[in-house]
Amino acid sequence: MQLKVQPIDVKVGKYKVILNTIDAKELGVHEGDRVRIKNHVTLTAIVDFTEDMISPGMIGLYHEVKEALSKEWTETVEVFPAEKPKSTYIIRKTMDGQKLTKEEIDILVKDIVEENLAEIEIAAFLTATYINDMTDDETEWLTRAMIDSGDKLEFDTHPIMDKHSIGGVPGNKISLLIVPIVAANGLLIPKTSSRAITGAGGTADLMEILAPVEFDAAEIKRMTEEVGGVLVWGGATNIAPADDKLIKVEYPLSIDPHCQMLASIMAKKGAIGADHVVMDIPTGPGTKIKNVQEGRKLARDLINLGDRLGMDVDCALTYGASPVGRTIGPALEVIEALKVLESFEGPNSLIEKSASLAGMLLEMGNVAGKDKGYDLAIETLKNGKALTKFKEIIKIQGGNPDVTHKDISVGEFTEDIIAPNNGYILEMDNKRLVQIARLAGAPNDKGAGILLHRKQGEPLKEGDPVMTIYAEKKSKLENAVKSAKERPPFIVEGMMLERIQSFKEI
Amino acid sequence: MQLKVQPIDVKVGKYKVILNTIDAKELGVHEGDRVRIKNHVTLTAIVDFTEDMISPGMIGLYHEVKEALSKEWTETVEVFPAEKPKSTYIIRKTMDGQKLTKEEIDILVKDIVEENLAEIEIAAFLTATYINDMTDDETEWLTRAMIDSGDKLEFDTHPIMDKHSIGGVPGNKISLLIVPIVAANGLLIPKTSSRAITGAGGTADLMEILAPVEFDAAEIKRMTEEVGGVLVWGGATNIAPADDKLIKVEYPLSIDPHCQMLASIMAKKGAIGADHVVMDIPTGPGTKIKNVQEGRKLARDLINLGDRLGMDVDCALTYGASPVGRTIGPALEVIEALKVLESFEGPNSLIEKSASLAGMLLEMGNVAGKDKGYDLAIETLKNGKALTKFKEIIKIQGGNPDVTHKDISVGEFTEDIIAPNNGYILEMDNKRLVQIARLAGAPNDKGAGILLHRKQGEPLKEGDPVMTIYAEKKSKLENAVKSAKERPPFIVEGMMLERIQSFKEI
Repeated sequence: MQLKVQPIDVKVGKYKVILNTIDAKELGVHEGDRVRIKNHVTLTAIVDFTEDMISPGMIGLYHEVKEALSKEWTETVEVFPAEKPKSTYIIRKTMDGQKLTKEEIDILVKDIVEENLAEIEIAAFLTATYINDMTDDETEWLTRAMIDSGDKLEFDTHPIMDKHSIGGVPGNKISLLIVPIVAANGLLIPKTSSRAITGAGGTADLMEILAPVEFDAAEIKRMTEEVGGVLVWGGATNIAPADDKLIKVEYPLSIDPHCQMLASIMAKKGAIGADHVVMDIPTGPGTKIKNVQEGRKLARDLINLGDRLGMDVDCALTYGASPVGRTIGPALEVIEALKVLESFEGPNSLIEKSASLAGMLLEMGNVAGKDKGYDLAIETLKNGKALTKFKEIIKIQGGNPDVTHKDISVGEFTEDIIAPNNGYILEMDNKRLVQIARLAGAPNDKGAGILLHRKQGEPLKEGDPVMTIYAEKKSKLENAVKSAKERPPFIVEGMMLERIQSFKEI
Repeated sequence: MQLKVQPIDVKVGKYKVILNTIDAKELGVHEGDRVRIKNHVTLTAIVDFTEDMISPGMIGLYHEVKEALSKEWTETVEVFPAEKPKSTYIIRKTMDGQKLTKEEIDILVKDIVEENLAEIEIAAFLTATYINDMTDDETEWLTRAMIDSGDKLEFDTHPIMDKHSIGGVPGNKISLLIVPIVAANGLLIPKTSSRAITGAGGTADLMEILAPVEFDAAEIKRMTEEVGGVLVWGGATNIAPADDKLIKVEYPLSIDPHCQMLASIMAKKGAIGADHVVMDIPTGPGTKIKNVQEGRKLARDLINLGDRLGMDVDCALTYGASPVGRTIGPALEVIEALKVLESFEGPNSLIEKSASLAGMLLEMGNVAGKDKGYDLAIETLKNGKALTKFKEIIKIQGGNPDVTHKDISVGEFTEDIIAPNNGYILEMDNKRLVQIARLAGAPNDKGAGILLHRKQGEPLKEGDPVMTIYAEKKSKLENAVKSAKERPPFIVEGMMLERIQSFKEI
């Protein structure tokens, strides 16, 4: 069918066109079907319908199709009904509980990356794998396909080290310490990180305060070879891009299918050529991993998948019921990390966790003997080598290497939340802490967040400040304070929690 | 956040807005999250992102939101992040294999009808129920919620009769005979039908050749009370509208979850107040129901659900391996049906099937004695009462009651497909027949379709025409003929299919 082109400058993130219902009927296509545009063999587009937006005889081309056609632009195009992509049948197989072959998974991941699938098709795939999961073989193939779908780093020098934290614990700024410790000891660690989606600050959000974080794969390789490590935003690279497309659909569905989570983590490690990886698995209420059993299962799965991919994976189940350190929110977390690097001054939870995981990497990379990694990591912090290395990393990424913790500005609007009575902090609620930090403006307002004056198990008196909320905008501070007062993110109790009377004879 | 309004005149079928990434970050919302527009308590919209289409400080309102706000239009609006609708948590429950309560299903169906859910959310729900199915209780509640979600017919006179065919067999024009037979015997049968989605012609596509088929619920009731029956398009009514919204997502996913199929069929029957329903379940290769066992299971489920809803359901497993009658495509099918009504002239398969199902309804409605329904149906055809009633139905729907089969025009371009050798029709392939009819233009070109000169088991000689393809457009005829010749929709073999030699002693 010959149709006159009408560009519609709306980005829909897919190759989509819109037809008048009359023409669509004539063509024999329905909403969600595909059409092919003649002389554009590679371009099939998903069809939307309209009764009035586009006149009969016209075809509306959304932004992405318009761009794709712009080089060979014509006033009219010839349009044919097109077959559904093979991937739709592959997705149907997963819905029917059938196993996929390696070839099918390759096709599927290719179609995901090339935006050939509608969001509802990806949603069906994710829901099906959420319910039916994948076999070890399928998960391995999925990971390999995701690695192959984008840019890869190939280093001449090995080993390549990497570290990943499963999300869910607030204030987890440990990468800012681990990367310089590891690099300072002569190992290469090209660390890509995420920005917060539901959290108060991802490592990329933190690092961005000190230096640019958006680089492509070649730049990451060059910088890593030069100074030993980087701290960059994975989202700016084309490393394992299928993952980003899947997350776009997972996020509104609030699901993270087990096999996808494994593949997504390991694809990023595989694509940067990691040989040794430490996994931080925060465990406890309010984290993704509710208990030790679940944590061990995830650890086994990650180790197993690493083994299949030729990667050496060690896992650490870490305490996740409370925040790491005493700060939540980009600027506050950067200050806390810098203080540790500058003067070894800071909360035990932060120093111990960072040194433990860095120590594992130092042992895996053979720069520390067995059980000597932790001590070497602490030593690297104390003797200032980690700070020196961190400054090199900041500099090579384009930041100011002379920065100190005093240069980092926090939100000018602050308010304390005080203890309602004498007692001890019985419980901290991670999710509420994150909610309050987000209400205060984190992670977008870098200066917003929470400073904890007391943590779980610590004593305090009525009227003592438990935490200070920081915000860059007054209205956001007010929202955050209101929320914190209505539903405090902590419980203060006396040491005797409950009195249970002894039985009496009657 | 105060934002300046920018209307975007694109219909997206949902309440959707689009924000610049900068504002979205400031608001703390991500793609797929919801925002609420102040002073519009009922309106939450799904958020899309853009980096350039909408400037910071603006909010793009897609057509549906623009319309909803048009009465209280202001230049700027105040926008807040909003909670996800409760339905998203309900969908998550189905994904986790948990059972839903009646209240949860009511909320879910309400949100589906009111377009409060994103398509990916509906896709997740359908995928989850496709995999996990629903209990009998859940299916009943779903059906009731679908009935209550739209218009209902409430007749003063009872019983109300209805009939439904599970799709998949081409040429199934039986409703054109059943409805007048039943109505001619004094029973009320307000029949809503569908248009073809993947087929070559739904009952509504056929009836539309004779009379308008788009009416609302009140008109359907009035016409049925006046002449006893109607043949209208269900899609034009607001009867069980949730179903249409679900089909919009089911179609591109090519799934029809069992519980949804049951609920979707029975909701339409329930909403028109049916007391007695006959279900036609075509069974065999190329239909939806592959074998008799599957057909029986579906029959039991329909009868069981009918029982729960207070409906008397009888099911007929029918022969579905070949087309019903000898025509496929709207005009050809109407001609075939009219000939039966006018002169009792036509293929046995069509007359028998129609009379059998009509007979079941006549018995259920107590106008024929036990096992006398079939004969009464045949009698009603032979004595012309069915024709007279059909003319009344055509007239009340606004068509010309004097129409005869000679007035129906078919496509002017035709070509015969001939037998390649002497033999018998060993097999007819329903799916290929439909594909070819669709290539010829059906159902949109009403005159396009296929006339079968031979059917399964019938003998023929080399060069005899097996079928004639009709089309309204020459190019479509050529496409259809080319396809039919490349992959014939039938197999002609001699009576001896294969020669198996006897064993010989060696």
